[in-house]
Amino acid sequence: MAGGSGTRFWPASRAARPKQFLPLARGKVLIAATVDRLAGLCEPDHVWIATNAVQARALAKILPDFPRDHVIVEPEPRDTAPCIALATATIAASDPRATMVFMPADHVIEPVPAFHRMVRRAVEIASDGETLVTFGIKPTFPATGYGYIECGPAHDGGEPRAFSALRFREKPDRAAAQQFLDRGGFLWNSGIFVWTASAIRRAMSRGNESLLTAYEGMLAAISKRQRAQTARAFEQAPKISIDYAVMEKADKIAVVEAALTWEDVGSFAAIEAVGAGDDSKNFALLTAGASQLLLQSQRNIVYAEGKRTVSLFGVEDLIVVAVDDAVLVCPKHRAADLKVLVEHMRAQGRTDLL
Amino acid sequence: MAGGSGTRFWPASRAARPKQFLPLARGKVLIAATVDRLAGLCEPDHVWIATNAVQARALAKILPDFPRDHVIVEPEPRDTAPCIALATATIAASDPRATMVFMPADHVIEPVPAFHRMVRRAVEIASDGETLVTFGIKPTFPATGYGYIECGPAHDGGEPRAFSALRFREKPDRAAAQQFLDRGGFLWNSGIFVWTASAIRRAMSRGNESLLTAYEGMLAAISKRQRAQTARAFEQAPKISIDYAVMEKADKIAVVEAALTWEDVGSFAAIEAVGAGDDSKNFALLTAGASQLLLQSQRNIVYAEGKRTVSLFGVEDLIVVAVDDAVLVCPKHRAADLKVLVEHMRAQGRTDLL
Repeated sequence: MAGGSGTRFWPASRAARPKQFLPLARGKVLIAATVDRLAGLCEPDHVWIATNAVQARALAKILPDFPRDHVIVEPEPRDTAPCIALATATIAASDPRATMVFMPADHVIEPVPAFHRMVRRAVEIASDGETLVTFGIKPTFPATGYGYIECGPAHDGGEPRAFSALRFREKPDRAAAQQFLDRGGFLWNSGIFVWTASAIRRAMSRGNESLLTAYEGMLAAISKRQRAQTARAFEQAPKISIDYAVMEKADKIAVVEAALTWEDVGSFAAIEAVGAGDDSKNFALLTAGASQLLLQSQRNIVYAEGKRTVSLFGVEDLIVVAVDDAVLVCPKHRAADLKVLVEHMRAQGRTDLL
Repeated sequence: MAGGSGTRFWPASRAARPKQFLPLARGKVLIAATVDRLAGLCEPDHVWIATNAVQARALAKILPDFPRDHVIVEPEPRDTAPCIALATATIAASDPRATMVFMPADHVIEPVPAFHRMVRRAVEIASDGETLVTFGIKPTFPATGYGYIECGPAHDGGEPRAFSALRFREKPDRAAAQQFLDRGGFLWNSGIFVWTASAIRRAMSRGNESLLTAYEGMLAAISKRQRAQTARAFEQAPKISIDYAVMEKADKIAVVEAALTWEDVGSFAAIEAVGAGDDSKNFALLTAGASQLLLQSQRNIVYAEGKRTVSLFGVEDLIVVAVDDAVLVCPKHRAADLKVLVEHMRAQGRTDLL
């Protein structure tokens, strides 16, 4: 799933160059790292990318060897539920019994062998054709930026551990997040899902008839290679997230505990997790040709592309981003608010910058 | 006089692109603004530029129409006294009775008509063939970055006002500067000088025999077009400023009170005086193609060249400089310390950045 725009990475990200096209996976482009992570886990021709039309064109440059006919193009942006329904229908049309793994293209997940074990365990659980499986990350702090999964009884056997999921909790406030951490038994919702077509069909039929109708329309149209009708069915799906539409209402959900490093690269602040640090707690992500020169500066984040040097002198707690045609300076604690700046640009008519 | 390097303007200034080649005169390159300021005051073929060999080559691009044979190339950097002696000898060799105006190439002086009146008054005073004339700026705050001139009795008649100069005072500490301001009768030393060859010769003979010897050697060599001998004489001049060598010891000095806006563009902080400001006290100097987009940001200084946008979001009191191959971020109050950063670069072996 690679349809997001990533306004919190301006000016590195633009309309035709979303977050997943940025070299945020320790210098490797996120979507390339995501595809590479699947090597050895499934056949290369079982990998699909769902994205929008603009990004599908840009994708050809980023992943020139990726087969064009495995790029699923969303007719319009309609949140994750319609996207997942379209992708499910596309795969089910050719292989109705397939077990599918849905993962965002903008995560950094390490190490790869642990990730493979985690997915294999999920596939095993999903093979009952009824259970929706997700992955839960052990929380390390009371994050308010992630959803939480409340774990029920443990599943029998196997590694890594898996539980029945009791409940999905949307991004909590600080107090609730602290409570989850204190009580234990809560995991961060990774946004990665594993299921069969029959399981997701069954789940949609529980309280989301309009999504189910759209899904069946897409499945029928794709089977007959009717592109226009596929789009029409897609556009009739409710504009809603898969969590709201399905996960929060489903009765059979398992959560596999992910014993690995997982980073939802949500803003430049994530460079502290996926970049290189120095003794003064400055972190940087620099592409080939870019360099930095820091003096009397602490706890800053630098992101630079192209043949240029970013120099900081006597500054603290800043984010400094430098690309060919733009420079951004903002305090670290405003990283998540960057979409406010992007909205301001739009309001100012500076669409040339977007 | 255009030989300075301007390390306090890195990364805009480099070895081959010193401060006076930067568009710091409200978007116009300083040295071009300095030459233009003389239009109507003297014949175009009476304008000379003194600089070093590297910058003389670069000058051809900045001022393509300026005659190459009016560029005085200093054989090596030796402070202002040898430079002024060489320039004086060059002009005196062809016109021994000329009245000469020496001015740094990196000042912003406005308005031009007031500047012309000031120079004409100085030329009138210097026409006695004995007086060294300088210009004094009325201090507006207790600056510690400028030298001061203590004024004596007023000269008769004419506008703007002129005084005998009693004493030259080097850059004072804060307390002394405040005292000068409180007592009155002190002016900032502008570093602009007017005199005839006979007057400066007379002044050099009072306590600076080695400079005088070098000057006479240069004058003789230039008259005979002996380039190597001119350089040899230049290299025998003491490495010293004109203030130390001559002005502080001279007996006949007049100071013309400059009734105009004068900005010794000493660091990026000067952009508050020579750039454009907004309601939030942000100041910018942007060349054609460059733009800025500021949100929730106050009292910053932006300098940008080339086709790029500098965006500040939620920051205060910073200097942000963006050119093709480098970006600098530092606090405003560190503007004058930038040479420390440049020294650090040199120590780090990053001469590619200088």
